[in-house]
Amino acid sequence: MQDLFSVDDAANVLRRTPDALRTLLDGLPPYLVEGREGDDTWNPREVVGHLIHGERTDWIPRIRMVLDQQPGPFPTFDRTAHLTSFAGVPLGELLAIFARERADSVNALVAMRITPEQLELTGTHPEFGRVSLRQLIATWVTHDYSHLSQVTRVMAKQLGDDVGPWAKYLSVLRR
Amino acid sequence: MQDLFSVDDAANVLRRTPDALRTLLDGLPPYLVEGREGDDTWNPREVVGHLIHGERTDWIPRIRMVLDQQPGPFPTFDRTAHLTSFAGVPLGELLAIFARERADSVNALVAMRITPEQLELTGTHPEFGRVSLRQLIATWVTHDYSHLSQVTRVMAKQLGDDVGPWAKYLSVLRR
Repeated sequence: MQDLFSVDDAANVLRRTPDALRTLLDGLPPYLVEGREGDDTWNPREVVGHLIHGERTDWIPRIRMVLDQQPGPFPTFDRTAHLTSFAGVPLGELLAIFARERADSVNALVAMRITPEQLELTGTHPEFGRVSLRQLIATWVTHDYSHLSQVTRVMAKQLGDDVGPWAKYLSVLRR
Repeated sequence: MQDLFSVDDAANVLRRTPDALRTLLDGLPPYLVEGREGDDTWNPREVVGHLIHGERTDWIPRIRMVLDQQPGPFPTFDRTAHLTSFAGVPLGELLAIFARERADSVNALVAMRITPEQLELTGTHPEFGRVSLRQLIATWVTHDYSHLSQVTRVMAKQLGDDVGPWAKYLSVLRR
């Protein structure tokens, strides 16, 4: 695997996610965007809420902590906060909030003009201990891809009963 | 699982896929769009080629065979044809071809004005035997989601070495 990862690449990917989610989700019937792949899993609308929560409390705040070399561990990220804070908020509204807040985040990231040397600065994760700024920013990007892969997989599964024997060749239904 | 699937819903989803892929892929560095998740797997550029091949030889031609009640099994779909027919074609070009051909396909699908009764018509799959038009169209949609989930998962994996300990919470890296 090549290690070509850069902050410019990260910004290039992160900027796209709101548009990708809007294209994939906005204006679809409820059985797709409210469907789940199991108990205690999130539907696509809830995933957008989770991404907004990350913009507010996770990525840029932690990046600032590392760059400023603030002491102490990162505040713990609450993985379920969005289930209450965004309960009942329509998907279209969540997509608009996410687009605005993600644009602000990416602009903030670019404005930091992080150098390759700074990518090796470290902070303290509450569970993992020492982590690098490079790992934190790469995780931000991978986390986006993870949830994009999830929402498309979850929507595929809503049609799992309709495809009949073709399920054999649709491995996404079993992931 | 609710069975709310309709041809209108299918068209609604199918129309979005070219834009979603363009947003996700166009203008990204080669290590993302040419990266793989293993031997004998497709990179995101190859997936777009495969989708074009499906527009030409699979979905609409098979739907017409069912609607016209043509005898005999569907011609076998060649799952690897795109690896030779689109070898060396740049991603931007493939995205443009797919957008054009998918738009034609969805327009053709809508123009067929398929009734709920017609969804129960059947054709003969070369491997599965009798399949319904409903299953065929649902498979088209699910197949799109499957490949959208795949390209985002494959791109996530290109950053798998960069995320350090966070890999623990990024299950997409292990799917």
